[in-house]
Amino acid sequence: MAGNPLLSDRDVDFVLHDLLDVGSLCRLPHFRDHSRETFELYLRSARRLAREVLYPSYRAVDEAPARLQGGAVTVHPALREIYPQLVALGTIAAPRPAEVGGQQLPHVVAAAADLYLMAGNLSATSFLGLTAGAGHLLESFGTEELRRTYMARMYSGEWSGTMALTEPQAGSSLGDVRTRARPTPAGHHLLDGAKIFISGGDQDLTGNIVHLVLARIEGAPPGVKGISLFCVPKLRPEAGRLVPNDVKVSGLIHKIGWRGFPSVVLSLGEEGDCRGWLVGQAHQGLAHMFQMMNEARIMVGCHGVATAAVAYQESLEYARTRPQGRPLASRDATRPQVPIVAHADVRRMLLRQKAIVEGGVALVLTVAHQADLAGHAEAPEARARAQRLLDLLTPVAKSFPAEWGFESNALAVQIHGGYGYSSEYLPEAWLRDQKLNSIHEGTTGIQGLDLLGRRAVADQGAGLRTLLEEIGSAAAQARQAGVDPAWPAAVERAGAALAETTMALAKKGLSGDAEGMLLHSTDYLRAACILVVSWLWLKQAAVAQAGLARDAASRPFHEGKLCAAQYFICTELPDLERLLRLCRDGEDSYGRMREEWF
Amino acid sequence: MAGNPLLSDRDVDFVLHDLLDVGSLCRLPHFRDHSRETFELYLRSARRLAREVLYPSYRAVDEAPARLQGGAVTVHPALREIYPQLVALGTIAAPRPAEVGGQQLPHVVAAAADLYLMAGNLSATSFLGLTAGAGHLLESFGTEELRRTYMARMYSGEWSGTMALTEPQAGSSLGDVRTRARPTPAGHHLLDGAKIFISGGDQDLTGNIVHLVLARIEGAPPGVKGISLFCVPKLRPEAGRLVPNDVKVSGLIHKIGWRGFPSVVLSLGEEGDCRGWLVGQAHQGLAHMFQMMNEARIMVGCHGVATAAVAYQESLEYARTRPQGRPLASRDATRPQVPIVAHADVRRMLLRQKAIVEGGVALVLTVAHQADLAGHAEAPEARARAQRLLDLLTPVAKSFPAEWGFESNALAVQIHGGYGYSSEYLPEAWLRDQKLNSIHEGTTGIQGLDLLGRRAVADQGAGLRTLLEEIGSAAAQARQAGVDPAWPAAVERAGAALAETTMALAKKGLSGDAEGMLLHSTDYLRAACILVVSWLWLKQAAVAQAGLARDAASRPFHEGKLCAAQYFICTELPDLERLLRLCRDGEDSYGRMREEWF
Repeated sequence: MAGNPLLSDRDVDFVLHDLLDVGSLCRLPHFRDHSRETFELYLRSARRLAREVLYPSYRAVDEAPARLQGGAVTVHPALREIYPQLVALGTIAAPRPAEVGGQQLPHVVAAAADLYLMAGNLSATSFLGLTAGAGHLLESFGTEELRRTYMARMYSGEWSGTMALTEPQAGSSLGDVRTRARPTPAGHHLLDGAKIFISGGDQDLTGNIVHLVLARIEGAPPGVKGISLFCVPKLRPEAGRLVPNDVKVSGLIHKIGWRGFPSVVLSLGEEGDCRGWLVGQAHQGLAHMFQMMNEARIMVGCHGVATAAVAYQESLEYARTRPQGRPLASRDATRPQVPIVAHADVRRMLLRQKAIVEGGVALVLTVAHQADLAGHAEAPEARARAQRLLDLLTPVAKSFPAEWGFESNALAVQIHGGYGYSSEYLPEAWLRDQKLNSIHEGTTGIQGLDLLGRRAVADQGAGLRTLLEEIGSAAAQARQAGVDPAWPAAVERAGAALAETTMALAKKGLSGDAEGMLLHSTDYLRAACILVVSWLWLKQAAVAQAGLARDAASRPFHEGKLCAAQYFICTELPDLERLLRLCRDGEDSYGRMREEWF
Repeated sequence: MAGNPLLSDRDVDFVLHDLLDVGSLCRLPHFRDHSRETFELYLRSARRLAREVLYPSYRAVDEAPARLQGGAVTVHPALREIYPQLVALGTIAAPRPAEVGGQQLPHVVAAAADLYLMAGNLSATSFLGLTAGAGHLLESFGTEELRRTYMARMYSGEWSGTMALTEPQAGSSLGDVRTRARPTPAGHHLLDGAKIFISGGDQDLTGNIVHLVLARIEGAPPGVKGISLFCVPKLRPEAGRLVPNDVKVSGLIHKIGWRGFPSVVLSLGEEGDCRGWLVGQAHQGLAHMFQMMNEARIMVGCHGVATAAVAYQESLEYARTRPQGRPLASRDATRPQVPIVAHADVRRMLLRQKAIVEGGVALVLTVAHQADLAGHAEAPEARARAQRLLDLLTPVAKSFPAEWGFESNALAVQIHGGYGYSSEYLPEAWLRDQKLNSIHEGTTGIQGLDLLGRRAVADQGAGLRTLLEEIGSAAAQARQAGVDPAWPAAVERAGAALAETTMALAKKGLSGDAEGMLLHSTDYLRAACILVVSWLWLKQAAVAQAGLARDAASRPFHEGKLCAAQYFICTELPDLERLLRLCRDGEDSYGRMREEWF
């Protein structure tokens, strides 16, 4: 167990350097104080912390979840030892500018480090991930005073942050948020309402917790256009000290995974004295919050990849060491058994996991890299181009790891056989952890609506056209490197098919049939996930094929990359055809199904 | 929670009567004492027991698993109240002949009742299911004395039975069983070895436990040809009383589901006095055990269907009552929210569950019906035909519910959103329960090898030809009833494609390339599952379409059947093409992948 490497360093380095050439970011003014060496230093510290401190505590934290007693949540004691070490690493503000206390690291490097930390102990890292997003909201939209009072202490890890959106009647439908905010002459608002599923909503790790809360100012218009964003601390500074701000923990959710990371029900303003400070513009709260939601969706993608990765490593090690059965070709029972990796069907499961995990690593790091370019590339066109890709790929980066990752985690259990079905082994815990990722930060269904209904058709499909250009370059690169020409051909064909389907669906939407356009949005999202990850496997295949000729010592690594690329492109990609046909034909079984027919 | 119906009575009646016409079984001599009324009586009792006694205890049993203390397992106290009621219903020997104490009920009726009981509380029913299989082994192969001493008490529920096959080094590879059996002049053997994952291997429900154990008689040939079957009681009758038989419980597996049903490690013969009595022929143990393994595989299929069914019912009720969001066509935030069943993507998830659950009900009951015909049809050709179908369909009946059922159970969690991720709601528990079904009684990988390597090619593909005949009749019936002609055409085309692929693979095997033939056996199994369930949906569509014209009151039920048939045939069946192409082309990514390349 202590030997689980969490992720393959070789693979992460391959994606960072061979695929994305992140060193070249240092030529941009924003990153000029960095170098490949500072990236390595940060990554190396994260790897060590993840392997030596976070992972060894994972099982204990899973076994003894956070508790609620006397209105306060107590986290697992191991987390109290881990938290300051994560803070010391600087993960919270790693990509933030130096002027606000950050390390000004590229997102892509920070995300690579996060993958290790998350794979080591998802719960431990999550307190900091949310704090980063909440702090960034204040950085972007908060007043100078809010930034000074809260943001700085959040970026330093002294206080933590949360996002408080969901209410019992308002989960996927945020327009139905009911928490009320009444203005006061003093400038703050008084809040009154209930929030549910608030991750990190209470804990005993930090001196204070700063909730970024969606609420409705009295008299605001109904729906999403009447929602405002507030900064609502658990304790508010008053006359030089911190006093309770009438934020009560009224319940603890018994989650089936992420068990070290408490999710609570919060009651705001039970005593009429819960003060909140407006962040940004009144009634623009949801628009502001989308900054954090987009970041959180990519973070969820990282969670999904990390959770699939650690389980893949575990099942790989198991398959290499567990003897069972004999080759089909020579079943002589007097010969010793072979390790199960020798069986084709076990290699199928492992290669599928590898294709999902490493495809996922390439996906989330590519998206993070685009975020860096969108923010800091020199040419405005380059920034705009990166932003288009980032916008388009966000639902994919959120959903592919959640959905395929769950399948990958189930395979890790399957490879462990009967042992995998017991809590003496860890794969079942990661399977539980993974399931949340298709639910929180917008369910897979919501991601599908967001992708097809908004992002794919925004600006006349500009994001999709950019993706097709990327696919075209990858295909050219693959052909030049000598990759099996069937692969680039298949990926290009798939890209064209997705574009064509998108146009047909957009036309349906423009003709007023939004229901028809979006009927198969989840199938569309699945198709987009398959296409995007196929593109990234094609890119990896091109680099690996070129590497084969050049670098004899890396042959096993590059051969493995080519097998995984082949697996994904030859066995997963063909399903895109079926999915797009459903979208195009508008197969209407559940469209016409009525409630009373079930 | 108390309102969960577990399964739809209307659906089960539809399959039993409209689809399978089980009443006509009563014309066969073996079932002549039965009638549709006796079937109903039995079913009604099972439904009541399942709903009123088993289901209400499910959560409590899941929350407090069996414990091992002082070498003995204590089950949940609720099980001690349930067990005698299940015994009183007569489930253990329901399909056994009257002469051995059974009710001589058709398997298909017994299985329908079992579905309710399993859906109510899987763990509670499992003690009896294993006892039935173990008793039947003694009935088939035991000496008169073994039958009198053990079988009779097992069929009456006084004692329970287990199957003790797996050892730490011999799971999927039963040829590696090492438990030794030394003959004694007294006629019994002395056993010595360790067994693991023995379900129901100890408990405090019954006065004795009878283990059916695979072991190797001293000097036996290596591998599967040297394995014998023994009857090894926990307590052995000696001089009119029961004395310990040196069977020790050396460990309890902490399973992640089926938590009321203990799985233990058994140590046989630590004190040199564990006596076993040979069942059947020496060295024929595995062949004999296949009777129980085949029965257990179908039983696992029932477990899978039942576990998916109860979760489907739960998510259907949730979707009907949970308000969230508004229709795409009118998003007016001042209007009340709609129940989530009004959203197309939620209906997609529900219809997929319905298609899997009701397809699964049709599958396991069809297989049980074929078992009845194989045993008791009048004409020898009819018996042989049914046996061919039964043999072919057993891996499908085991694997479809396990694999698609797991997806269905994950959808039930997904529909419940954040609530589904908490242990305050039940879907997560059924998701855990379901995962075992792809692992025990032969993993999905093993089922694939069994189907393609043995069953599909046995007798020159006679089973497959029989299936194609069945598909042909269903297609004709569907066309005659006025079902959309695209559906029968698609299912017939799929049947022909599977047959063609099977021939091509068989040819590869005959040419000596067993590895190549079986490389994609799991994909082949998936294709076979899809084909078989599409056939059964086509049959159901034909009956439903005919019913639409005839029976106005049942219109909602029949419309629902047609939507589910459409869903399965139009969205799941097309994946068969991709799967068979992989089999035919021999896509070799994981075939050529090497351990050191991962």
